[in-house]
Amino acid sequence: MKKLITNVALYQDHSIKEGKNIAFTDDRITDFPDHPDRTAYDEIIDGNRMLAMPGFVNTHNHIAMTVFRSYADDMQLMDWLMQKIWPAEAKLDSDIVYAHTMLGIAEMIRCGTTSFADMYFFMNDVARAVETSGIRAALCRGVTGITPNAQEALAESKEFYHTWHKKADGRITVMLGPHAPYTCPPDYLRQVVDLAHELGAEIHIHLSETKGEVQDIKEQYHKSPIALADELGILDCGCLAAHCVWVDEDDLNIMARKHVRVAHNPGSNFKLAGGIAPLGEMLKKGITVGLGTDGASSNNNLDIVEEMHLAALVHKANTLDPLVIPAETALQLLTEGGAKCLGYTDVGKLEKGYKADITLIDREGLHWYPKHNTMSLFAYSANSFDVDTVIVDGKTLLRHKAFTTIDIEKVKAEAERTKEKLFSQLD
Amino acid sequence: MKKLITNVALYQDHSIKEGKNIAFTDDRITDFPDHPDRTAYDEIIDGNRMLAMPGFVNTHNHIAMTVFRSYADDMQLMDWLMQKIWPAEAKLDSDIVYAHTMLGIAEMIRCGTTSFADMYFFMNDVARAVETSGIRAALCRGVTGITPNAQEALAESKEFYHTWHKKADGRITVMLGPHAPYTCPPDYLRQVVDLAHELGAEIHIHLSETKGEVQDIKEQYHKSPIALADELGILDCGCLAAHCVWVDEDDLNIMARKHVRVAHNPGSNFKLAGGIAPLGEMLKKGITVGLGTDGASSNNNLDIVEEMHLAALVHKANTLDPLVIPAETALQLLTEGGAKCLGYTDVGKLEKGYKADITLIDREGLHWYPKHNTMSLFAYSANSFDVDTVIVDGKTLLRHKAFTTIDIEKVKAEAERTKEKLFSQLD
Repeated sequence: MKKLITNVALYQDHSIKEGKNIAFTDDRITDFPDHPDRTAYDEIIDGNRMLAMPGFVNTHNHIAMTVFRSYADDMQLMDWLMQKIWPAEAKLDSDIVYAHTMLGIAEMIRCGTTSFADMYFFMNDVARAVETSGIRAALCRGVTGITPNAQEALAESKEFYHTWHKKADGRITVMLGPHAPYTCPPDYLRQVVDLAHELGAEIHIHLSETKGEVQDIKEQYHKSPIALADELGILDCGCLAAHCVWVDEDDLNIMARKHVRVAHNPGSNFKLAGGIAPLGEMLKKGITVGLGTDGASSNNNLDIVEEMHLAALVHKANTLDPLVIPAETALQLLTEGGAKCLGYTDVGKLEKGYKADITLIDREGLHWYPKHNTMSLFAYSANSFDVDTVIVDGKTLLRHKAFTTIDIEKVKAEAERTKEKLFSQLD
Repeated sequence: MKKLITNVALYQDHSIKEGKNIAFTDDRITDFPDHPDRTAYDEIIDGNRMLAMPGFVNTHNHIAMTVFRSYADDMQLMDWLMQKIWPAEAKLDSDIVYAHTMLGIAEMIRCGTTSFADMYFFMNDVARAVETSGIRAALCRGVTGITPNAQEALAESKEFYHTWHKKADGRITVMLGPHAPYTCPPDYLRQVVDLAHELGAEIHIHLSETKGEVQDIKEQYHKSPIALADELGILDCGCLAAHCVWVDEDDLNIMARKHVRVAHNPGSNFKLAGGIAPLGEMLKKGITVGLGTDGASSNNNLDIVEEMHLAALVHKANTLDPLVIPAETALQLLTEGGAKCLGYTDVGKLEKGYKADITLIDREGLHWYPKHNTMSLFAYSANSFDVDTVIVDGKTLLRHKAFTTIDIEKVKAEAERTKEKLFSQLD
């Protein structure tokens, strides 16, 4: 299928050019023709008044935690986990995870997201939802070394890799998901590293999310979580590290040297009172960073455009430097930075040969007037509801805000049904 | 006109009750009948699946600065003001201010805002736009003591008060608007206080926005901006103080004692790298606080729901206390707190005898599922695009997202036309 997006504002090479055309064949961008022969295409997508961005990337999620959205807020972190989340997670099943993964995927697509990284349980169901919906994802089975099923979870991870890696037309890749150094003792992390080398799999892990976690790890191992992960070989496998809020100069140097990719999750870090990550310092060191929402239970939405606003705004105040995250950097975090975080080499830019993962933004909202600077308007004024069209792997998943692959009323009904099923067991 | 909103979730007395009805006659709420006689009403507004909130209040704005939205971003504050904003403001006229005030009012209504505080120039044009659009506003002519027109601006303020105070069916109130202690020397501020007493007018002022400003004032006057304003009598007139980012314990005690009302503007404070105000400390002292966007040139939108998210999230991270601004507090800041900031005694709550300023929120978006806790969902997950209906003074200004008093295409065209006119003089 040859398709053409016409007369669109194109974000490319760090700037936005008006009146461009984007041609793609099947899943890949082929050209940006100045004078396209419209008869040569199977489908013409009118991009008039739209901004074409590389599809947004959500670099850290536990997507089925949508089932816990607004279930437990305004609590201390450990109360929240121990009294609310962990007991409820113990009741999850395949049905609940599938329904709430579909809910989360639909919400992410609605917000312009074309790929995401996920770490959770019942990952075959998550993979099925990715396959069905048409989105792209880097998935891992979350594992911990301190639970009775630690070895079983590793075996499941291996099986999940063999079943789903590069499947769904290549839209699914599989990583390994050791939860964190405070839930995975060194011997267990070494097992994960061995498995990663055996499979050629990359690793997605939580590192240095809270001050308390870093203090505990330092007491126990006399080094930071970053240094510990480095020592154990975690950082040599291709590592996506979520959070990295409490990292010092030494940590940042290790992260830069080992090409650690950081999932920066401002909404979740703020809501859980984890802190404010040194994003400006990371970028100065040349560290790759993308944006993530984390699960909906600690955010409480999966709106990656809101994460971009948070990242663009809050670090300015925290460093008292209005230039620390300029508009262009915010756009890079949302797109190319995120794609690199997930290990993609042909996603995250609108270039010839890249995957046709494209988000079209409607620029007709009141908050897009008057028109001085499109990049600034997108970084600072836009809203996820401006997303009009979402294309993944060349296939349109959202057009004029309507879903093409997902029955939204069914998704909402299933989310409610399975939520009721889960919580009826807890009351 | 007797109107009834039926079967709505009602935010009242710090909680949300499902299946309620709201009756209002003309501009005031009359009742919450359990079994209303539908034939007794001139209009029935279906509130099914909606959340009824007191209309949102935007407590600090320079609304016509929408003309500078995305004109100058990612700059140091003084470069931004001196190289970009001030030279452009010198070219403003009545036509430009009216057009961009209409744009800003439309955007605010779209975001659920029913009243706002404004400080700017060409205030007769701002008042005309308020009158036409149907929104409620507390307006002031911004004045500075260091410009050649200082006395003329005071005279204009007086005339503006006499012309517009309590006009537009009482929807407009007028305050005095001394810009800030660093632009208004003590003698000038004393003149403002004298005029405030003469008129019985309240005062809207910027106080302690940046660290540099506080340092300068302390060097010059050997006291903080808050202490200086107190000494000069500013705080005795009923004072709405914008920002208050750099306030210490002594300042907070003065503010509490003098019943200073604070316009908290997280988006603007963050974007300009002003800092993070001690919101939790203010609330602990019992200080009245509302939320504001500030002008669109430093935000860059007028989305008060986004300000609520910023306030609910960022202070948790900044204080490492997940309970500092719980969901209910966020809702109070957005509504009742804001209304008190503007000096209203019958706006900001859905109670018998209060003004019928009501915002209805659609709860059918994906990010509102599953349904555990409506207050949490609104505080942490909602988006301004969930706003369905906006009623001010009993009159519907927005219904199912469509404007009833504003021609949106004309507003956008006028915004572009007048922007071009302004900037053609600057090129």
